[in-house]
Amino acid sequence: MTTLIDDIETPALIVNEQVALSNIRKYQDHCNAAGLALRPHIKTHKTVRFSREQIAAGAVGITCQKISEAEIMAQGGISDILITFNIWGEAKLFRLRALAENVEKLQVTADNEPVIRGLSAAFSSAAKPLGVMVECDAGAGRCGVQSAEGAVELAKIIVESPGLSFSGLMTYPAPGGAKNVVEFMRRAKDQLEQAGIACPAISSGGSPDMWSAETSGIVTEYRIGTYIFNDSSLVARGACGLSDCAAKVLATVVSLPANGRAIIDAGSKVMTSDTLGLEGFGLVVGHPDIKFTQLSEEHGTLEGATDKLKIGDRVSIIPNHICVVVNMFDTFWLQNSAGEFSLANVDARGLIT
Amino acid sequence: MTTLIDDIETPALIVNEQVALSNIRKYQDHCNAAGLALRPHIKTHKTVRFSREQIAAGAVGITCQKISEAEIMAQGGISDILITFNIWGEAKLFRLRALAENVEKLQVTADNEPVIRGLSAAFSSAAKPLGVMVECDAGAGRCGVQSAEGAVELAKIIVESPGLSFSGLMTYPAPGGAKNVVEFMRRAKDQLEQAGIACPAISSGGSPDMWSAETSGIVTEYRIGTYIFNDSSLVARGACGLSDCAAKVLATVVSLPANGRAIIDAGSKVMTSDTLGLEGFGLVVGHPDIKFTQLSEEHGTLEGATDKLKIGDRVSIIPNHICVVVNMFDTFWLQNSAGEFSLANVDARGLIT
Repeated sequence: MTTLIDDIETPALIVNEQVALSNIRKYQDHCNAAGLALRPHIKTHKTVRFSREQIAAGAVGITCQKISEAEIMAQGGISDILITFNIWGEAKLFRLRALAENVEKLQVTADNEPVIRGLSAAFSSAAKPLGVMVECDAGAGRCGVQSAEGAVELAKIIVESPGLSFSGLMTYPAPGGAKNVVEFMRRAKDQLEQAGIACPAISSGGSPDMWSAETSGIVTEYRIGTYIFNDSSLVARGACGLSDCAAKVLATVVSLPANGRAIIDAGSKVMTSDTLGLEGFGLVVGHPDIKFTQLSEEHGTLEGATDKLKIGDRVSIIPNHICVVVNMFDTFWLQNSAGEFSLANVDARGLIT
Repeated sequence: MTTLIDDIETPALIVNEQVALSNIRKYQDHCNAAGLALRPHIKTHKTVRFSREQIAAGAVGITCQKISEAEIMAQGGISDILITFNIWGEAKLFRLRALAENVEKLQVTADNEPVIRGLSAAFSSAAKPLGVMVECDAGAGRCGVQSAEGAVELAKIIVESPGLSFSGLMTYPAPGGAKNVVEFMRRAKDQLEQAGIACPAISSGGSPDMWSAETSGIVTEYRIGTYIFNDSSLVARGACGLSDCAAKVLATVVSLPANGRAIIDAGSKVMTSDTLGLEGFGLVVGHPDIKFTQLSEEHGTLEGATDKLKIGDRVSIIPNHICVVVNMFDTFWLQNSAGEFSLANVDARGLIT
């Protein structure tokens, strides 16, 4: 199916395939050179298509945050999946057990004993053990055990739990927190060795620090999501350039109510209110003197040099935070290297359980 | 289908039907007493079911923001629809024309001449004219003509345009801006009369001021959305009480990593990052000493007196901004007066075009 960009109804999400594939390639090369296994997080693209491209480029597997995302990816043939979430409750454990039978390698994370007990109860009769990584809080202040001692304590419980195998340590660092990760993980790894527990992998991640994160031979695996599309937050943090941004929101100017103000048909229902600490709600491509200053649900407000715009003009926006924006679209337009557009599904959109 | 709340997988959206119906009734009574036509905005509930309840209670019709929302509501049998948006472009005008043939009464808004010209071109051969209201900016600074003179100018163009009929003036006021609305609309109405143009309706709206908005016999129609479910922003603004909040997010505590911190399985992918100026991301029902302080995409951070919580506990959250939260769910659980739960679709979720 081929479509002209003028025929695309707005608001729409447009993904430049060549830029996305180039981003995949560049970071895979980086990980190969650094001796890191790359396990991309699908939360950014949410598509089987791009998961396959990441695997084909050399990724060891993928990362998902929810079972429902992993289910869709497994249906799409992805066979090595890490779910970085504490899975709890009978319904979810039942689904996790079924999922394990449909992939070659499945891992989850856990940061507390009740979750490990639940996983063990669900997998004690399984054909193969479920890999469980211990989630560590190396400074980000979200989930995770607070100390190396805490990590070893949970690793011991996993090792002793029927149906489970200890598959390593995992953390999601604060931006700029790679040094803390290395220190935490070195301590935990030493203590695991002292306890006679092998640590198959140490997994860290985060796109803001992707080019600079110190791994020191301690971190063995890197998880990132945003790098495939990039966004204005990563441009602002120097992790990529504007030309590396693969995904943009196409919008139409529908109102020019006053001097210096233009209203577009893309509001928080497509852009979301995530600012990631930036001013405004995205970069207006080709209009550095126009700011995206306000959002209602279906309207976006542009301010500045709007005198160049007329009703019906199209503008392209590079979002602040592309992951959450992709989640607002059922479908996106994929632009190939010949400039042709085809409509594709956001396979894992809205999968929250 | 009957379900126990413990069987509902989280995160989930739970709507108390009796509270929603009571909210519909109370505001309809208020409008009846005030001599105002009520035209609820479906952006909050996004369901045919509740649109029908609003009409059955006495609403004159509904308000939608996008054609796709109106299409779903028309399919569900709603016959009087106002789309408060500047409709632009061949594809959308084609759909608008088809929609007009499927409802009894269809109106849109416009705040500029190019949009009116487009509407006229699409409807010049239609069996009945399209009602067009002129959108006025009475201080909110979004869309709308900037003056009464501007409104009359566009009204004249509408009156003279084949296929269109001038159906009145519309505004979306800034919170607390009802007085400015009355002043703007009185001037515009006077000038329309002087120009010999009848003004069939003057439509204003906004939930924050719903009980107090001065209408002074000038405003004839009120549009609100949030009142059906309410949310913590309306509680904070004194427009409702906690017991009037009909829609809550059910979440599970999945991690208790440190003293004073609990992590739930509801992040920005269900809560959104909309704060509406409030601190935090929602009220934790029954836990006034716990704050909802941070969001990642799939994790929410609760801080405070979390020592009462254990892994697997369920918490109910009253969101800051319920409209955008409903849009994050494909389905919701409707709890009836007997306490039974049934799964229902969010019919207009994600309809952005």
